[in-house]
Amino acid sequence: MGTTARPTGPRASVSPADARAAFRAGLATPTAGWSDGRTQANLIAVPADWAYDVLLFAQRNPKPCPVLDVTEPGSPATVLAPGADLRTDLPRYRVWRDGEPAGEPTDVTGVWRDDLVAFLIGCSFTFEGALREAGVPLRHVEQGRNVPMYLTDRQCRPAGRLHGPMVVSMRPVPARLVDTARRLTALMPAVHGAPVHAGDPAELGIADLSRPDFGDPVPARPGDVPVFWACGVTPQAALMASAPPFAITHAPGHMLVTDVPDTAYRVA
Amino acid sequence: MGTTARPTGPRASVSPADARAAFRAGLATPTAGWSDGRTQANLIAVPADWAYDVLLFAQRNPKPCPVLDVTEPGSPATVLAPGADLRTDLPRYRVWRDGEPAGEPTDVTGVWRDDLVAFLIGCSFTFEGALREAGVPLRHVEQGRNVPMYLTDRQCRPAGRLHGPMVVSMRPVPARLVDTARRLTALMPAVHGAPVHAGDPAELGIADLSRPDFGDPVPARPGDVPVFWACGVTPQAALMASAPPFAITHAPGHMLVTDVPDTAYRVA
Repeated sequence: MGTTARPTGPRASVSPADARAAFRAGLATPTAGWSDGRTQANLIAVPADWAYDVLLFAQRNPKPCPVLDVTEPGSPATVLAPGADLRTDLPRYRVWRDGEPAGEPTDVTGVWRDDLVAFLIGCSFTFEGALREAGVPLRHVEQGRNVPMYLTDRQCRPAGRLHGPMVVSMRPVPARLVDTARRLTALMPAVHGAPVHAGDPAELGIADLSRPDFGDPVPARPGDVPVFWACGVTPQAALMASAPPFAITHAPGHMLVTDVPDTAYRVA
Repeated sequence: MGTTARPTGPRASVSPADARAAFRAGLATPTAGWSDGRTQANLIAVPADWAYDVLLFAQRNPKPCPVLDVTEPGSPATVLAPGADLRTDLPRYRVWRDGEPAGEPTDVTGVWRDDLVAFLIGCSFTFEGALREAGVPLRHVEQGRNVPMYLTDRQCRPAGRLHGPMVVSMRPVPARLVDTARRLTALMPAVHGAPVHAGDPAELGIADLSRPDFGDPVPARPGDVPVFWACGVTPQAALMASAPPFAITHAPGHMLVTDVPDTAYRVA
């Protein structure tokens, strides 16, 4: 939502621990381009009595919701980033009450609860290094913007009280490189895998690419095809649709920077 | 245990629905070689108050426990096999009470409960077609035996009340084909993916390949290397270690034959 990612640069070489320390100290910036080669993750924390619904929703919708870790109730620790505190170490959060956004603090220590279970969900930033190495340009990075994300007309398979539409991220890709992008990302199923669609946005019920539901608009260049990947913001759309009493997520684009190398999620 | 799989033959062309009908009618036979090209699945059904622990155990141990479907409490239906009844359509079950095997009936309608949640877990039979097509011989099929499975000294990451060792299946593979087998199975992470080890069984704490914990011994041929894949019997080992009050599983080797093509679980 209008957040502007910085272009790659000196932040690419910052260690994940140093990035998290900067965010813990109050720096509130999107994480695209930070700690190149390390996996970033979406956060969704819900009360324990909703945890089974979230975990089952993720199992039933693995392309948008690949689960990388689940915490113990109340614990702010994750195996993906030893020493990190999930209440402070993301640059910006979104707090949810009854399915409505209720603030975007940079620290959630004050609203954390002893019964919260946090889910860390794979993020498509993880495969961008592989795309770049293969010569696939990243238009949103070139343009210094956050990746655009859209609500689709494809409903996820419901689970318990959770239901909602699939969210996708979109990258414009030169037509001759669409197959390369498909092949490479298929090898990373834990971070959304192959695209769900390439070509006409109307196939996904997206009316206007210039008006994303999350992130920034990213104009295509001549010869580019819009390519859509399932997106880890999908659980936030499910919160909006299903309205649990309380939840905490990352703010779109403001991810957890983990210690895990991107390559750990390549199956081959 | 000690169940003997039939060699491939006319059963390979039986449709999954016909296979399930035969088992429903009482045929109690291992499913290796049945309905070639269709995915087979491990079954573990537990009371609903254990379901979160099982689902989290699976999330934390995706190589041995890739979840293909989870049922609604009490329902014997699965999206993997429309029309199937999970209480009758497997050839043989194992009933568990307090972590101990308590019978191997061919029908569990009489002991089914309204609060049971069934998990269908991926099975390494699913990648055997790809191995065979690539010229990797399947010694257990040549010998008309069930694949051998072993408890290892590698502990799974615990989840709630569930803990236990990883179980592996073993296939002897000619040394020059081990890389082929590794590469092909890596592309199928939903059915255990790449091997966890190839070579010395002692690395996994396996003392004697001729004495598997489940299935049949399968002697290697000269030049073969033992190759070990994470195995969907791992949740049964967790039942033995963790002792929930009640559970129902398939009997080893007696799987659910689903309608899903094996190729659906190839990422590329």
